Amino acid sequence: MTGIPNGGVLAPVLTPFAADLSPDSVRFLELCRRLAALGLGLAPFGTTGEGTSLSADERIDLIDRMAEGGIAMNTVMAGAGFPALPDSVRVARHAVRRGCGGVLLLPPYYYKGVTDEGVFASYAEIIERVGDAGLRVYIYHFPRLSGVTVSIDVIERLLARYRGIVAGIKDSSGDLANMVAMASAFPGFAVFTGSETLLLDLMRGGGAGCISSNANVNGPALLALARGWNGPDAETMQESVGAFRRAIHPFPPSAALKALMALRTGDEGWRILRPPLAPLSAEDEKQLWAALGEVD
Amino acid sequence: MTGIPNGGVLAPVLTPFAADLSPDSVRFLELCRRLAALGLGLAPFGTTGEGTSLSADERIDLIDRMAEGGIAMNTVMAGAGFPALPDSVRVARHAVRRGCGGVLLLPPYYYKGVTDEGVFASYAEIIERVGDAGLRVYIYHFPRLSGVTVSIDVIERLLARYRGIVAGIKDSSGDLANMVAMASAFPGFAVFTGSETLLLDLMRGGGAGCISSNANVNGPALLALARGWNGPDAETMQESVGAFRRAIHPFPPSAALKALMALRTGDEGWRILRPPLAPLSAEDEKQLWAALGEVD
Repeated sequence: MTGIPNGGVLAPVLTPFAADLSPDSVRFLELCRRLAALGLGLAPFGTTGEGTSLSADERIDLIDRMAEGGIAMNTVMAGAGFPALPDSVRVARHAVRRGCGGVLLLPPYYYKGVTDEGVFASYAEIIERVGDAGLRVYIYHFPRLSGVTVSIDVIERLLARYRGIVAGIKDSSGDLANMVAMASAFPGFAVFTGSETLLLDLMRGGGAGCISSNANVNGPALLALARGWNGPDAETMQESVGAFRRAIHPFPPSAALKALMALRTGDEGWRILRPPLAPLSAEDEKQLWAALGEVD
Repeated sequence: MTGIPNGGVLAPVLTPFAADLSPDSVRFLELCRRLAALGLGLAPFGTTGEGTSLSADERIDLIDRMAEGGIAMNTVMAGAGFPALPDSVRVARHAVRRGCGGVLLLPPYYYKGVTDEGVFASYAEIIERVGDAGLRVYIYHFPRLSGVTVSIDVIERLLARYRGIVAGIKDSSGDLANMVAMASAFPGFAVFTGSETLLLDLMRGGGAGCISSNANVNGPALLALARGWNGPDAETMQESVGAFRRAIHPFPPSAALKALMALRTGDEGWRILRPPLAPLSAEDEKQLWAALGEVD
């Protein structure tokens, strides 16, 4: 059974690297435990978590470390979408075997201007090849980076053929109307926003919650809003999490969040990113601390 | 020693798939042999060859088949650029071991708006990790699909640090002025155009040749122009290869060229593409035959 919360927040876990740029599984597991203890679901290998910079082997290894490290795997939605079909199938199959609550699937993202038929087939082939009734697919819609639109038509066709398997979407398009339309049109289909600035409005429109990288550093506030959206403090909480996001937003998110992790934990190793991403400049970092009101 | 021609044409080899979407190494090798026999270099795992749809393991296997199948590996420029560093390193290292003349490296192509520093580091890390003086890197510049610009500054820095290793570029930006500027600024740096419509002008400007997918089906004409650019028939030849490209250009290139392969060889299996790419519609195919003057 999936433990992906309907009415909750998942943290797209940052990936710490060692000096040789290999994933640091010890610090990764520490962060997973810390976030899970807050009540957050975990969405490793997303965009801000530098997921596309990790090979299939590296993702499989980190999934194993989580499972063996005592993480409740049914709350884990593992990023498993690659440009090459066999890589997606391998990671998705492994995620199912290890009991992950779901996989978050980018469409193949090299080619641009692909057809709905091609996008549908990309998802269908993964589902057929994994061939496991325990698979739960969450579509990762982030057209600004992937260059690929997953249309409502494609989702409708996928739901018609794979009802129960195709479980939801993380929508990072920022298009609230589209998210609310999906939540309304497809009962039981879990719609998560990639930005917490839309969280309250999406919950009011029948959405499932949010999967925002800021959950790495602002998890309790996001969770309080996702749980309390129908209560008296919702507007105030929305304003607060929005302000935090707006402070981070001008900076490259992986670099900014890793700098913040280094500042808060005192562990300078957090500053390492894998190319093509690069750490914040000293000047950017100073501006970020000022914007967040953090002590430098 | 590399056999990548300076003054020549490489064919971005199409990848045939079996009905189960696995690469068909037998037909792949057949095509490689046929193209090599024409005097073309081979550039497998490029854009039109559906290279990004192939995993690292699949590319390594096809490199082995080429090497064991008697292909002159020093004429092979193998596509080895992945979003994830370890995949690029694995394929590039294997290509060197198998004697490939070079590797064609897309920058990591998921993240957009990355810095020059991040692009430089992406190439530098691959070169350092392969750690072999026999490596020859050709930069694959295709910003419309990769979403990443490899700037002149980055190329200059790479040449300064890895002179002899960084050997050239395939420029699919269509920016002739930029290509001629590079050929002039960096002596010995081989500049290939991704479009044969610019071949004559590029050769006149000191370029190295072209790497165009149309070499799969129009190789002799491209080769004649690359070799005869300084002769009396150059303009006529340029007009002819340009007309061929303009006929293909309105259609998705992989699908169009695979349809043409099926038509010419009588082997319907050539029509299979891996998602997210999809075959031409019947209507598109009809229009393509009309444009090319092929018998339907």
